[in-house]
Amino acid sequence: MSPIFRLPGAVKSRAPLVEHDGLVFAVAVATDKSGSMYQQTKEALATIDQRLAKVGIDKSRIMTAQVFIADMAQKPEMNRAWDEWVDMSNPPMRACLGVALEGRDLVEIIVAAAK
Amino acid sequence: MSPIFRLPGAVKSRAPLVEHDGLVFAVAVATDKSGSMYQQTKEALATIDQRLAKVGIDKSRIMTAQVFIADMAQKPEMNRAWDEWVDMSNPPMRACLGVALEGRDLVEIIVAAAK
Amino acid sequence: MSPIFRLPGAVKSRAPLVEHDGLVFAVAVATDKSGSMYQQTKEALATIDQRLAKVGIDKSRIMTAQVFIADMAQKPEMNRAWDEWVDMSNPPMRACLGVALEGRDLVEIIVAAAK
Repeated sequence: MSPIFRLPGAVKSRAPLVEHDGLVFAVAVATDKSGSMYQQTKEALATIDQRLAKVGIDKSRIMTAQVFIADMAQKPEMNRAWDEWVDMSNPPMRACLGVALEGRDLVEIIVAAAK
Repeated sequence: MSPIFRLPGAVKSRAPLVEHDGLVFAVAVATDKSGSMYQQTKEALATIDQRLAKVGIDKSRIMTAQVFIADMAQKPEMNRAWDEWVDMSNPPMRACLGVALEGRDLVEIIVAAAK
Repeated sequence: MSPIFRLPGAVKSRAPLVEHDGLVFAVAVATDKSGSMYQQTKEALATIDQRLAKVGIDKSRIMTAQVFIADMAQKPEMNRAWDEWVDMSNPPMRACLGVALEGRDLVEIIVAAAK
């Protein structure tokens, strides 16, 4: 069994990114919880970028994204941040789901990418 | 880094299917939003079939499915469509979650498959 | 195409675990639906352990977890069970989402792991 790389995070019990055998998984929320849906999405996506950079890839290598949002009525604002950010030449498969999130989190994003 | 295949979709910012290194991810909703949970699930699963066919595989190669439904009370209707459709000799791991979906969508399905 | 291993489950239409080409996916809920969030999470995680053991791996090989809970207010109880269970030297990427689950299920957990 080959080692799994785990990016250290804020707590010991979870990793913000893992990589194994060319597969990369990352998660992000916004740290500024006062932000709007647009702002939180923009920040979370920027955090995804930073995390992918730790393993030498960028958003063009994202295969899938699950975007969990706390208020479906604000999906257009999430989409606005997504469309500004996404690599239109390399768009991921995406699903957007309305769920309950922690505290004032408005969005949480998971991606699967390929090295 | 080897290329990621991305099936073109209705919008430039998302792909309905991606494939890389033998891994395939696809998503589907029903296009007929007037359909019941049974009808929308049936249509979404047929769309999954069509999308997998684009990369030369069928439902027997699905490893996992996440079935997001907008009304947990209608899960039996989703299950009825699932059971009629699924390859009972090759059943995927599946999770069914009640979430908020876009507009009149009653179901959204994500699968991971292997070539 | 190489075979996909599918662990037989309680029903023919779904598998509790699949494995292909070194990738493992497993799902679990608690069977004792009278349990608290803490108890159901503890049981579901123990079931994940048992299922991973069927393909010769343990929780140190988990890459990602999605923890779906039926009541976000009880997330601290889920976290307590998680923190007691997780391999702190090998923490997975994790997302916790509040969704509607079946019947009296309080938690449903999906993991992706590597052989």
